[in-house]
Amino acid sequence: MENIDYKKGLEDVIAAESKICLIDPVSGGLYYRGHNITELTEHSTFEETAYLLLEGHLPNEIELKHFNEKLLSYRKLHSNLLQIIRGLSKNCHPMKVLQTTIAALGGIWDNKGTDNPKEICIAYLSQFPLIIAAYWRILNKQEIITPHKEFSHAGNFLYMLTGKVPTAKETSLLDKALILHMEHDLNASTFTARVVASSLAPVSAFLSAAIGSLSGPLHGGANEKVLEMVYEIGEESNVVPYLDKALATGKKVMGMGHRVYRTKDPRAIILQKYLKQASDSEDARKKVAILEKIEDYLARTFEEQHKKVYPNVDFYSGTLFHCLAINPLLFTPIFAMSRVVGWCAHVCEQWQDNRIFRPICHYTGERNLKYVNIEKRR
Amino acid sequence: MENIDYKKGLEDVIAAESKICLIDPVSGGLYYRGHNITELTEHSTFEETAYLLLEGHLPNEIELKHFNEKLLSYRKLHSNLLQIIRGLSKNCHPMKVLQTTIAALGGIWDNKGTDNPKEICIAYLSQFPLIIAAYWRILNKQEIITPHKEFSHAGNFLYMLTGKVPTAKETSLLDKALILHMEHDLNASTFTARVVASSLAPVSAFLSAAIGSLSGPLHGGANEKVLEMVYEIGEESNVVPYLDKALATGKKVMGMGHRVYRTKDPRAIILQKYLKQASDSEDARKKVAILEKIEDYLARTFEEQHKKVYPNVDFYSGTLFHCLAINPLLFTPIFAMSRVVGWCAHVCEQWQDNRIFRPICHYTGERNLKYVNIEKRR
Repeated sequence: MENIDYKKGLEDVIAAESKICLIDPVSGGLYYRGHNITELTEHSTFEETAYLLLEGHLPNEIELKHFNEKLLSYRKLHSNLLQIIRGLSKNCHPMKVLQTTIAALGGIWDNKGTDNPKEICIAYLSQFPLIIAAYWRILNKQEIITPHKEFSHAGNFLYMLTGKVPTAKETSLLDKALILHMEHDLNASTFTARVVASSLAPVSAFLSAAIGSLSGPLHGGANEKVLEMVYEIGEESNVVPYLDKALATGKKVMGMGHRVYRTKDPRAIILQKYLKQASDSEDARKKVAILEKIEDYLARTFEEQHKKVYPNVDFYSGTLFHCLAINPLLFTPIFAMSRVVGWCAHVCEQWQDNRIFRPICHYTGERNLKYVNIEKRR
Repeated sequence: MENIDYKKGLEDVIAAESKICLIDPVSGGLYYRGHNITELTEHSTFEETAYLLLEGHLPNEIELKHFNEKLLSYRKLHSNLLQIIRGLSKNCHPMKVLQTTIAALGGIWDNKGTDNPKEICIAYLSQFPLIIAAYWRILNKQEIITPHKEFSHAGNFLYMLTGKVPTAKETSLLDKALILHMEHDLNASTFTARVVASSLAPVSAFLSAAIGSLSGPLHGGANEKVLEMVYEIGEESNVVPYLDKALATGKKVMGMGHRVYRTKDPRAIILQKYLKQASDSEDARKKVAILEKIEDYLARTFEEQHKKVYPNVDFYSGTLFHCLAINPLLFTPIFAMSRVVGWCAHVCEQWQDNRIFRPICHYTGERNLKYVNIEKRR
């Protein structure tokens, strides 16, 4: 058989031109529309960064006001969605709930995919926190909280989730985590969104598809596994024996390494910083100490072998959500609630100069088989 | 800016190795697992061809019996799905209904994606006809028909759709159309299925995503447009003036040309043959005559310009479904009910040697912008 050189998983293959996100794998830089993620996390908000990604520039005061008004105008939950959530299995993963309800919204609102796509995208992204909070309240047999019109996107989510008005510190911490997870070039879910939208499928179709992609354990979900590992380790003094055993048995240490970065993921650096500021309980400080010891011990161990290994975005984010008293089941849905902005930005760009995605396979199977009647088959 | 050579829409880019489908663009050949589509359409059935695509070989009598039993064992509709369909907007497109309900099944059945994936796939593919028929009956305020356990996949669909026992000829015609639409290499929806499943997302997630991709007018839906064109033309004598006007004004003639084939799409040849056999009414014969005249006139016109243009699969399929008294709204859902087999076969292959899809963008946007406080922005 001829030897065909192709890139499995399309690694390093350029699949689109884009003005949205720049990753510098060597220096460990991440930029949204030319803006450094470190500056954005420090100074910006979910709303402002969403505007930046969708529109291409940071908004002035009037533009931000209009954007907020639009977002708020869609902040209500359709009663049919509650009915759908209640009709799913109680212990099904919330990503399935999210994929179903976003597809259903396409059938409830029934808007077209390409009439003012940005406006439609804003409508959909307003819905993610409402759906996730409603799922959580139904799961826990609590009443659904009516959305609060005065709160920010992040603040309202925490409010609807817990029924309590969040502190400014809590809202800000979630806001920063949302900014950090919003966009990351052609990861599998964003690539899914572009592929689906390239057939000119409607907004509900490509968003629901992207949620499905993110729901897989190789994409979303690693931060949940990191937190599980921290629980398993329990004490800082257990880190070295745990890692020695993991390395000896080939067990994967979660939250380490990235397909693109050759350095520490810049989002891990930022999350680590805010996590340390936020961890005011004994329990949280203990978890951070365990994480930092894992990072440090692995770095030193691999350095001896002239290799490098660094934390990625998932390494510190689970513990940060844990500090906000958010259940691990909700980590990937919150990732989706943030990444939806990137999905929408990429599709709006795709539609400006669209061509349907239609690659080919290299065929390695049988050829020219004869159809034999069933009674003669072995 | 540097000039980067990349393939828009990943045209001609190899994205996977596969043993499932071989397309010969030059001779116009299409093979499933090495078997010529012409032979399969002539001799095989939906069930047998689905087995072939999923398992890699044609079944013997015992294998086919087991496969049919499995398929039948899932032939019942969950009541929550009916509730979901009723909760969507009455005039929303049935592809939205299908995307929502298949995602919802993931939350109702709540099975894992990788435990015996072929068995799970069979369960899902059994559901497509039931959902489409239920949608149609609800839309038309008719009672839901209970699935018939003695009928074939195609026959049961026609039965549940109309409430009448289909003739052998009708069942056979639909069966042939299903075989023809089942698989076609890395078209956008099958590629979507592989990308989504590459994160190890569950079966409901990748199927729902693939439905979303197929729902776009650039992918599914062209056969509906061909039939509309035939209605618009009305009489055979109007074909030439219609086409002259279309060519002069740059209006697209639907159902012509294909990204891959350099010849007449082999599926169009087969559909044309069965359509001519099936068209026993005056109306149907008239429509076929219009289609053949379009094909003929375009071929001659382009030949004069030393160009070639050929019908694709969508050119004759809409009229064939029309002969079965199937409403155009259902054409793309029926395409999905067939192509789901290809989606499943590709994902089972993907999971045997998986690597997550993660291509890159070529960045052409701004760099190193400074964050300016909002009151200072223009």
